[in-house]
Amino acid sequence: MRILVTNDDGIHAEGIYRLAKAMARLGEVTVVAPLVERSAVGHALTLTDPLRVEKVFHDGVIFGRAVNGTPADCVKLAVRMLMDKPPDLVVSGINHGANTGHNIIYSGTVSAATEGAILSIPSFAISRAWSMEPDFGPAAEIAVEVAEQILAHRLPDGVLLNVNVPALKREQIHGFRVTEQGQGRFVEAFEARIDPRGKQYYWQAGETLIPDRGETIDDTALEEGYVAVTPIHFDLTARPFMAELAEWGW
Amino acid sequence: MRILVTNDDGIHAEGIYRLAKAMARLGEVTVVAPLVERSAVGHALTLTDPLRVEKVFHDGVIFGRAVNGTPADCVKLAVRMLMDKPPDLVVSGINHGANTGHNIIYSGTVSAATEGAILSIPSFAISRAWSMEPDFGPAAEIAVEVAEQILAHRLPDGVLLNVNVPALKREQIHGFRVTEQGQGRFVEAFEARIDPRGKQYYWQAGETLIPDRGETIDDTALEEGYVAVTPIHFDLTARPFMAELAEWGW
Repeated sequence: MRILVTNDDGIHAEGIYRLAKAMARLGEVTVVAPLVERSAVGHALTLTDPLRVEKVFHDGVIFGRAVNGTPADCVKLAVRMLMDKPPDLVVSGINHGANTGHNIIYSGTVSAATEGAILSIPSFAISRAWSMEPDFGPAAEIAVEVAEQILAHRLPDGVLLNVNVPALKREQIHGFRVTEQGQGRFVEAFEARIDPRGKQYYWQAGETLIPDRGETIDDTALEEGYVAVTPIHFDLTARPFMAELAEWGW
Repeated sequence: MRILVTNDDGIHAEGIYRLAKAMARLGEVTVVAPLVERSAVGHALTLTDPLRVEKVFHDGVIFGRAVNGTPADCVKLAVRMLMDKPPDLVVSGINHGANTGHNIIYSGTVSAATEGAILSIPSFAISRAWSMEPDFGPAAEIAVEVAEQILAHRLPDGVLLNVNVPALKREQIHGFRVTEQGQGRFVEAFEARIDPRGKQYYWQAGETLIPDRGETIDDTALEEGYVAVTPIHFDLTARPFMAELAEWGW
């Protein structure tokens, strides 16, 4: 089995290293990831600039290839140009910081897995809730379990999994919960500052607001010590509203 | 009425100029847009760099403010910092090139309108199918009609409209059709090239594939000469699959 591993924290992040090592227990791992951190890039593509690829070595052995692009670029380029055959699985992560609620639409981690699903490859994104000194070990173990689940069953075409792991030790995690994307979101409060040359600039700050607390909400599962597994797709059509919209008298 | 106008082709693009002029018939227009083209940036945010704002003048009169960020940054910054009160409507466009099918997940134009909806402001994105010498006049007229529809009725919370206008004269356009996001997508074929210093690089190329042809598909409506109006939301949960996923034995 061939597994493509990518992320948005960049190829030098600890999370992708731990993920690649864990995934190697299941098959042949290819790492293709952004050269530098590309968090909050959403589902961006690099169209106006060339993409360059360089090998990254650990202890003289090739660990993976770094691309001067986005997570979505990495998956497209890996599948189309860098791998001999398409992978059987795309795994994106381990992101440092949860990707839940509204925030998943800004997430490069999720966008990479979405790109895999667009290419009809079974795919999942995995993130670990933020903490000052993160241990990615439990999330790496859980990534293997999720991969085994996906291989044992089947994801429908166009559906991928968005997996979030709480910032807990393995034995403190209660298990898995199938969840939905909640309404949690980052509420911006821009700071207006003055630079050394006297010119004003703005910097995004703010805090997270989680308005919904139901048991099936991704953020709730995390808070209650469960791994949140949300099936997501890339059909944005608001179907329940289509009939009413058609009555507007266009 | 206060209307925020933005885009992803940049504040100097013809499309946003035509849109702003048309929207001025309905109320007070504020233009806040990227300084340079930020197409295919998806729903990206600028978190690691400061945002700077500069006024853009046309004939000595202020046209709008340019931000060194993404379309989503522009909407957040405008609503939180640059406008005295939140706008009553956010309009993003007129993009040069359709935003249909899978491509909407890469679209900065759509992401800006999505940001408006996240902030609970009625919002729509408007794009005009690509052609060599585009006339944005018909799309500007249609933007006014869509705005009037949204104001006369109401969009549900969390729903925005993604509007696409065919590359036709106004009298050739048959009318509006309420549509769904289709499966149309760009199929990449990277070109591997050698730079002047002998190093390899890759450039994204490819062609558009539209596999589904139903009457309610966004691309079909465009091809048949209709304005495609797709209601979209930012809840990515693949709800039909949740029950089956829960049976996987987690």
